[in-house]
Amino acid sequence: MTGQGATPAAPGSAAPAAAGEFGRIDRYLKPLAQGYPGAFGLTDDAGTVAVPAGMELVVTTDAMVAGVHFLPDDPPEDIAAKLLRVNLSDLAAKGAVPLAYSLVTALPRDCAEDWLARFCAGLGGDQQRYGIHLLGGDSVSTSGPVTLTVSALGLVPAGRMVRRAGARPGDLVFVTGTVGDAALALLRVLGREPAALPQAADWAPLVARLRRPEPRLAFAPALRDLASAGLDVSDGLVADLGHIAAVSGVAIEIRADRLPLSAAARTLLAAAPDLLATVLTGGDDYELAFTAPAAREAAVLAAGRACGVPVTGIGRVLAGAPAVTVLDASGAPLPLDRAGWQHF
Amino acid sequence: MTGQGATPAAPGSAAPAAAGEFGRIDRYLKPLAQGYPGAFGLTDDAGTVAVPAGMELVVTTDAMVAGVHFLPDDPPEDIAAKLLRVNLSDLAAKGAVPLAYSLVTALPRDCAEDWLARFCAGLGGDQQRYGIHLLGGDSVSTSGPVTLTVSALGLVPAGRMVRRAGARPGDLVFVTGTVGDAALALLRVLGREPAALPQAADWAPLVARLRRPEPRLAFAPALRDLASAGLDVSDGLVADLGHIAAVSGVAIEIRADRLPLSAAARTLLAAAPDLLATVLTGGDDYELAFTAPAAREAAVLAAGRACGVPVTGIGRVLAGAPAVTVLDASGAPLPLDRAGWQHF
Repeated sequence: MTGQGATPAAPGSAAPAAAGEFGRIDRYLKPLAQGYPGAFGLTDDAGTVAVPAGMELVVTTDAMVAGVHFLPDDPPEDIAAKLLRVNLSDLAAKGAVPLAYSLVTALPRDCAEDWLARFCAGLGGDQQRYGIHLLGGDSVSTSGPVTLTVSALGLVPAGRMVRRAGARPGDLVFVTGTVGDAALALLRVLGREPAALPQAADWAPLVARLRRPEPRLAFAPALRDLASAGLDVSDGLVADLGHIAAVSGVAIEIRADRLPLSAAARTLLAAAPDLLATVLTGGDDYELAFTAPAAREAAVLAAGRACGVPVTGIGRVLAGAPAVTVLDASGAPLPLDRAGWQHF
Repeated sequence: MTGQGATPAAPGSAAPAAAGEFGRIDRYLKPLAQGYPGAFGLTDDAGTVAVPAGMELVVTTDAMVAGVHFLPDDPPEDIAAKLLRVNLSDLAAKGAVPLAYSLVTALPRDCAEDWLARFCAGLGGDQQRYGIHLLGGDSVSTSGPVTLTVSALGLVPAGRMVRRAGARPGDLVFVTGTVGDAALALLRVLGREPAALPQAADWAPLVARLRRPEPRLAFAPALRDLASAGLDVSDGLVADLGHIAAVSGVAIEIRADRLPLSAAARTLLAAAPDLLATVLTGGDDYELAFTAPAAREAAVLAAGRACGVPVTGIGRVLAGAPAVTVLDASGAPLPLDRAGWQHF
């Protein structure tokens, strides 16, 4: 963990800002590294990671930019939770157990100390929740928007990372939890929900899912044992299944009437059926989408029950050019024409 | 490696930008991951790292922001080289052998494709030079300046990372190469060099050092075997020795007349002696500064000769409150009052 580097605008005089930066590191970041010996209390410019014999490290990195991935006035605790959880979700989708993370903050020079304090409190809360620690990182200043990067490190048995590649014709397609909640919430947050919706619609649980996704870490070991391919739903269900299709070299077919929906989403879709497109193509669900051999269907569903994670079969893998087709209840293809499709 | 995430300004319509982003990843980033199996050709959202028995991973992260750490119109190849090399320098300073790196680019939406092409060409050249590969990362867009982050991963024998802690009274202080070149070059680049300097001064080698620092990887094994504490000089010689002093709980005393200077720096200092302050406190040298027991002095100097890295003894470690004192040739403390001092 280092402070600000050389400043072209002020050669040799970077220290005043750097001193403030070091003070912030001491106050807010060092406590987040306690309990992880390889972080050396953030007193060094590197950390160490020990990998037990027979295991290997999974590394995943996600960056978030104010105005692109979150709204500048979102609560800092929620931004912290989302930053960490989208990375933990990637680890879960790869079948990995979280170990530690590094953090890079690029903050405007006038960033309020209170913002950083609340952001780090959010990180601290989630560290306890998920049993991980800060390993190191960097703190820099920027003339642009708040930019936050986390690299999360996890462990899997060597050679056992769940990949996007591996889906085969005959496999079934599954998804955990419910889909579309975050994308519906985003419409609401931006004031773009259809006018026809019932006033009584309950947006709160949807917005909570947008702001604080729940990484499906509990299902990671089952995923590793049972899935042929997998990822987490961040770009949107259709787009992300499209990634599996493209890398695995298969076609994927899902049934819209089998999509697991929350009660709140179900109410909204009853009032505005066109929102199905949002459910299918909106992002930020952070559920696990995966394929598994049909012979493992019962095992997949039983594993979900065993670890308290709902799992729903939504489709199948076919031979064919990489593509994702969505069928309605009658088996007819839906004429969707939005995000995700054009990845092919 | 993922594309752009959800865009609050355009729910469900992130794909057009994302498609362009995926195209750029295919064209410019995927070739950088060839040759490293754990990158899975950047087709996945995570990479794997295998750590041989008896070794552990060193993780170091450095971010660079346009206008803060480099000038917006610096050649993209040079920005790439500096980004990678400052991280490799951290690995060298920790005694680690480079293995792979992850990259996060936050680029303005109107970033020219040619810029990215040249930036990635710069990365590719340095990957060959240093024998490392791209492991993964993230690509996002920003309304702010170009922001680049590298996490470099290296290997050390377990428990053997060279730390900032460990310097003891009686140890000697060493530095590799020459110091101050980059800080002097920065004055020139910014047009702030003293007017009295000789017109014939040769700035080219100084500017080259600023733009393309040379990580002292060749000396890393010797450092691991011989040093009691160490780091690379990025914040400035005095500031960085101050980090060692603070974390080790010792005082450090160096002699200004023993500083290793390049021929170009020597010419400039002869004409403008006040530039000594720039040499002592300016950053970006990326030489290794370290302490070692006095009994190992001959071994340290021999190791430098053996691997072709100049090493110079510049001072000693004393018992006392953490501080760095610079003495002149007569042994009197220099009244420096610039960056680095106020870290205490």
